[in-house]
Amino acid sequence: MTYCVGLKLDRGLMFMSDTRTNAGVDNVSSVRKMYSWEKPGDRLITLLSAGNLATTQTVVSILEEHMKPVDDRSPSIMDTPSMFATAQLVGETVREVIKTASDGGLQSEAAFSATFILGGQVAGGDTRMFLIYPEGNFIEATQDNPFFQIGEHKYGKPILVRAFHKDMSFEEATKLLLVSFDSTLTSNLSVGFPLDMQVYRRDALARGFEKRFLPDDSYYRRISEGWSDALRVAFETLPDFEMN
Amino acid sequence: MTYCVGLKLDRGLMFMSDTRTNAGVDNVSSVRKMYSWEKPGDRLITLLSAGNLATTQTVVSILEEHMKPVDDRSPSIMDTPSMFATAQLVGETVREVIKTASDGGLQSEAAFSATFILGGQVAGGDTRMFLIYPEGNFIEATQDNPFFQIGEHKYGKPILVRAFHKDMSFEEATKLLLVSFDSTLTSNLSVGFPLDMQVYRRDALARGFEKRFLPDDSYYRRISEGWSDALRVAFETLPDFEMN
Repeated sequence: MTYCVGLKLDRGLMFMSDTRTNAGVDNVSSVRKMYSWEKPGDRLITLLSAGNLATTQTVVSILEEHMKPVDDRSPSIMDTPSMFATAQLVGETVREVIKTASDGGLQSEAAFSATFILGGQVAGGDTRMFLIYPEGNFIEATQDNPFFQIGEHKYGKPILVRAFHKDMSFEEATKLLLVSFDSTLTSNLSVGFPLDMQVYRRDALARGFEKRFLPDDSYYRRISEGWSDALRVAFETLPDFEMN
Repeated sequence: MTYCVGLKLDRGLMFMSDTRTNAGVDNVSSVRKMYSWEKPGDRLITLLSAGNLATTQTVVSILEEHMKPVDDRSPSIMDTPSMFATAQLVGETVREVIKTASDGGLQSEAAFSATFILGGQVAGGDTRMFLIYPEGNFIEATQDNPFFQIGEHKYGKPILVRAFHKDMSFEEATKLLLVSFDSTLTSNLSVGFPLDMQVYRRDALARGFEKRFLPDDSYYRRISEGWSDALRVAFETLPDFEMN
């Protein structure tokens, strides 16, 4: 599995993804699931992927026009007129890749499934974030629905629901993302280090702060241990039930 | 879906289950998923169920010999020589029911699937708790694995992992169960009130404290609201990331 989160904040977007990939439990390796396209002053587009690795890598390769010689590449994802059009492009590509992979081949459609979070900004528009389904259609993050999770999302959801607020700072949002990932990492083997993080500051139209968290990162360790302790303390402060 | 938890504590066993059952999202109703058999001085056996309701109700009906006239019933679950033998009996019944339901019928085996938590004590033995799979085999709770969850288990797992300790009191364990259920209830529509709780005090060989929590229960409300606040406070106490 995988765990990826995209947050839509007032001041911009934040993305975090794990890097664990596995076929069964013994064929485990590490792969980046965060892809970015940048044309400074014009656009910054970031894509997070969960699902079949062959599908997600093929989608990205097509978006980057890897089938053409390097000099002839002119990825249309660099020329879409809006984020909505970008989501349509990615959605169509996903649908096409899954259709091709499952057409007359060995396995069922489900095995090739993949889901994406797409976020960014194209000059002339606002920051936008979409969740793109394997069917190629998508939904957009709104005031009522300001974050998306894909992959192994259940363990890390309760803290997001409770602590997220759209006017939080990037620094506080980093803490929130790490707590959410830490809850997932401690409960599920299929999500693993390193964790990739990217910040997009609204109207920057260029890459923002990026960091890869390793398991021995000192800030991650403080959050992980601190959160365990803080949870226990929080739990202690609640009154015990009275049984009679 | 469903959410049920069984805890194996030093001082006994605790069980909690929700009561939501649904076929799709509009055919929602409430059904008890906790069943107990008691012969005071000899045994107390409790069964929690998750999965296809037709399967789980049939399993319980067979265990209670509902196919016989009332006067002729002599459920073998009241006569098993040990908890292990009880787990074998339940496991065989589950396998048989699923096999019969899926044999030549309309749907795949998966649709009839069900999982159970079985716990209790039979005179002469210690308290024991088992997780029984749809295949009819089972695993037992141990020191390393002192609680079982079935159904929608992911949201409520992180707090169990962090706050459970086997020498906790029943009063504190009630708090833990409610926090775990509250995290699940706030994240997933398929788990719902009321919540049934049962306490089994080691060597009592009889029913212990039982309670059905309704959404307006004053203790539940204190825990739910208190936990939201406590989580936010805990989150505040952690240091923000420093981005540079």
